[in-house]
Amino acid sequence: MTTNGGETRVYLLDGGTLVIDGYHLYWNLGPGGEVRFPCYSVLVDHPQGKFLFDTGYDLEHVLKVLPFEKPEQTPAQTIPAQLKLIGIEPGEVTHVVNSHYHFDHVGGNRLLPNATTIAHERELNQLHHHEPFERLGYSDTSFDAIGPRYELVNAPTELAPGVELLETPGHTAGHMSLLVRLSGRRPMLFTGDAAYTTKSLETEVIAGFHLDPRASVASIRHLKKVAEDNEAELFCSHDAASFAGWQKAPAYYR
Amino acid sequence: MTTNGGETRVYLLDGGTLVIDGYHLYWNLGPGGEVRFPCYSVLVDHPQGKFLFDTGYDLEHVLKVLPFEKPEQTPAQTIPAQLKLIGIEPGEVTHVVNSHYHFDHVGGNRLLPNATTIAHERELNQLHHHEPFERLGYSDTSFDAIGPRYELVNAPTELAPGVELLETPGHTAGHMSLLVRLSGRRPMLFTGDAAYTTKSLETEVIAGFHLDPRASVASIRHLKKVAEDNEAELFCSHDAASFAGWQKAPAYYR
Repeated sequence: MTTNGGETRVYLLDGGTLVIDGYHLYWNLGPGGEVRFPCYSVLVDHPQGKFLFDTGYDLEHVLKVLPFEKPEQTPAQTIPAQLKLIGIEPGEVTHVVNSHYHFDHVGGNRLLPNATTIAHERELNQLHHHEPFERLGYSDTSFDAIGPRYELVNAPTELAPGVELLETPGHTAGHMSLLVRLSGRRPMLFTGDAAYTTKSLETEVIAGFHLDPRASVASIRHLKKVAEDNEAELFCSHDAASFAGWQKAPAYYR
Repeated sequence: MTTNGGETRVYLLDGGTLVIDGYHLYWNLGPGGEVRFPCYSVLVDHPQGKFLFDTGYDLEHVLKVLPFEKPEQTPAQTIPAQLKLIGIEPGEVTHVVNSHYHFDHVGGNRLLPNATTIAHERELNQLHHHEPFERLGYSDTSFDAIGPRYELVNAPTELAPGVELLETPGHTAGHMSLLVRLSGRRPMLFTGDAAYTTKSLETEVIAGFHLDPRASVASIRHLKKVAEDNEAELFCSHDAASFAGWQKAPAYYR
């Protein structure tokens, strides 16, 4: 399969917003108080496939299980609607890969009927055998329940030329970040929840939600090193100010 | 050395109070907002020695380094003043052992000129090589700076008959709790910061400050099991409501 004349394009899909406390955003540091932040997904339209990195949250799930996160998501901010913006049907997505399996990163997986699900072994295991404090994080298991075609990884992995998964554990057991090399600009490094915001990167203050804080700090440092070595631009997962400045679908990076 | 005709007595030494946020007390759960809680130390006056478990915080240190914890400590709430209440000079304390080396548990160590310092190897190592997020916790190193006579442990240890240290890591690398068996009542199990409050024990929601959340949950469960097996009463470290109901020095448990 070849698309776009062999050019790789990256689309950022707006998935709406959620609210958490400042103490969740910056572990033990805060300051406290409600913070509304974006959730987005990344479509890498590559000559070898259409790779979707993260799929946002399912509005019904959040309203039912975590209503205190005050979801705001319009019908235009669902995965199918966002894909439609760029002329792609859900069935055309060939691969889905999630930074991790928290509910706000997997909500759209179940809507991709033909995608292979690339899973980190440790993340999938943790979904099934999580700690008590991870219960709400791993509360949306709809994607697992549909019995997807899994392809397991347990190391840094090149999904396709210029599309690379990094291991960035700590926030969760098998968390991964995504590096995409493009022809027309410097590489894009999507941190996932290894770094919610640019302030997280700068201060190395990790998020309140985590499995292993030592590993979390190490992953932030690893991401900064990879960005430096590759002259890549870092895209954090939940930074409202940064997100406001980025191009969103149907616009794209190439 | 024999004291009290061979009877072991336990004194709770009031060390004043501090303030943290509700998100520090109950990790990610809160609710947020200031919570004032007690800091106390435990003197075990035993036929084989005078063992001091934890030594509270140093008021000057907190005012200088962590003033946002709003310390309230009267001159009567220092270790020397509390010991004087029960007719003991600081130089008579034979052993000091800290649940862990966070500033609010070590402040009085340096005032005990003749005490052997019983240290968990991993805790002492972590004090010297801590994670960035542990900086404020391990900010009072005055006790280490004076070059105490250390006696290292790295396993559950009986300090004297009926005085037992348990390993309860997670909050910190080498955290320990203390079980004291008495002749006239059921055993007393001092959790240290493995459980700030009785609510922590009941809900198994650990404190926001921690090194290893998985180990923290396991330690709470271990403490509950030890308490059950020994029909011991659990004494949490920072529970204002519980503390209000306990006997404080010069009264004692026997």
